[in-house]
Amino acid sequence: MRFLRYGAPGAEKPGLLDAEGRIRDLSVLIKDLEGEVLCHLDALKGLDATALPLVADDVRLGPPVSGTGKFICIGLNYADHAEESGMSVPPEPVIFMKATSAICGPCDNIIIPRDSEKTDWEVELAVVIGKPAKHVTEAEALRHVAGYAVTNDLSERAFQIERQGQWTKGKSCDSFGPLGPWLVTPDEIPDPQDLHMWLKVNGEMKQDGSTRTMVYGVAFLISYLSRFMTLRPGDIISTGTPPGVGMGQKPPRYLVDGDVVELGIAHLGTQVQHVRSDDAA
Amino acid sequence: MRFLRYGAPGAEKPGLLDAEGRIRDLSVLIKDLEGEVLCHLDALKGLDATALPLVADDVRLGPPVSGTGKFICIGLNYADHAEESGMSVPPEPVIFMKATSAICGPCDNIIIPRDSEKTDWEVELAVVIGKPAKHVTEAEALRHVAGYAVTNDLSERAFQIERQGQWTKGKSCDSFGPLGPWLVTPDEIPDPQDLHMWLKVNGEMKQDGSTRTMVYGVAFLISYLSRFMTLRPGDIISTGTPPGVGMGQKPPRYLVDGDVVELGIAHLGTQVQHVRSDDAA
Repeated sequence: MRFLRYGAPGAEKPGLLDAEGRIRDLSVLIKDLEGEVLCHLDALKGLDATALPLVADDVRLGPPVSGTGKFICIGLNYADHAEESGMSVPPEPVIFMKATSAICGPCDNIIIPRDSEKTDWEVELAVVIGKPAKHVTEAEALRHVAGYAVTNDLSERAFQIERQGQWTKGKSCDSFGPLGPWLVTPDEIPDPQDLHMWLKVNGEMKQDGSTRTMVYGVAFLISYLSRFMTLRPGDIISTGTPPGVGMGQKPPRYLVDGDVVELGIAHLGTQVQHVRSDDAA
Repeated sequence: MRFLRYGAPGAEKPGLLDAEGRIRDLSVLIKDLEGEVLCHLDALKGLDATALPLVADDVRLGPPVSGTGKFICIGLNYADHAEESGMSVPPEPVIFMKATSAICGPCDNIIIPRDSEKTDWEVELAVVIGKPAKHVTEAEALRHVAGYAVTNDLSERAFQIERQGQWTKGKSCDSFGPLGPWLVTPDEIPDPQDLHMWLKVNGEMKQDGSTRTMVYGVAFLISYLSRFMTLRPGDIISTGTPPGVGMGQKPPRYLVDGDVVELGIAHLGTQVQHVRSDDAA
């Protein structure tokens, strides 16, 4: 199933796509796509979507999950990206956090923060936790997944790297976490480690990769993270990016007001974002 | 006013201390100490606490705020701690995140994570945001504070420093963020930059400092952070620790099962935590 949330920012309602790809209102049945509901999405499998109210297809989409407590990101998790960067693959995952206030809809504007000159893109596979996970094995890890989504792990490289270490500062700006369009349940994904992913800027392909070259796969990451902290329903794990980010271009190419970013992952849909400077926003 | 939340973990109700220091049930008036309520705590100032139901004084206290979206920490923010560590004061604040799932009550057990050998303490002044803050000036910053609280920024030093950079990994374990006992409104605090703070392990004083030696003060930090991300009601800023952490002892001294940690800050109350290993927990 493909779940989504639609409506004005902060006032989104839950919905889903029917077999024809039309949006149906799910708020008549559930309060939101958050918390306990995410542990039990399977219960909605037999639902007759055509019995739900139809929603206009030009409605704004918000992030397809609510109540996210943690937005965890994995650094340097693609072998070809590490190679491109001249860095070695880390012996265990590098993890850092994005502020949950960075989360926005899949087609909301990207706002370049004030004083930013190095706002960069990163298409990533996001994993949304359903069932709480603590000290889970790799074998049982995927049972804790509510679904998958596309995310753009936007990053201000100067804030991230040149402003007193700890990447959080460059990863957490408002609008730096577009998520969606959909939360796609695991049964729709033949293999999360074999998904084509891509990102274009103004129509030009910049990232063209696959989750095949991920160093630490989804099941391993869930198991690994669950040794350090309890993963809860609605938590997001963004699993790293393949080669082709702006910082890696020769010369580097960062986002400017007016740019259009498109990105997508097989089975998970696409995002389109218009770039605006903070003052123009 | 001194607000608190009491009851079983995850099922806390809001309360407050009356003039005699007895706990009163606030759930008859407000749903919880979260979101919009935190912007309007002033409205409760004239409240007759004695008209509220009395609560047993041996009840468990939870964290005094709910719905925290971000738990932001400031690194190396005490001049005397930086000196003790042989490190220079950073030219601008070092910021990192703790997982919000680490937040717990002020007297809950500290759980030493599996495979941990370097679990350490850090008494810190926590600032809880009331009114949303984005690009606020230092002069107006304190108007965005809902209140202050004690926190113990527990840290696993090996996870933090020796396990592939980015401090998050060593800061986010379950139970690593005791908060409270109270959320104390700013009118109760003569000067947030002149608060005595201390921490004892098994009765022995380890940290004995003051917010006077903070490098970047509360108002500056709020203004600074608000340039990078919108601060929202319930967000917590933990402002760094004075000298005397376990890592800085000669030889280093880390927490073990059976230790008792006590800590406090003037006007903000005290915490007592019993240390348990994960398997004993």
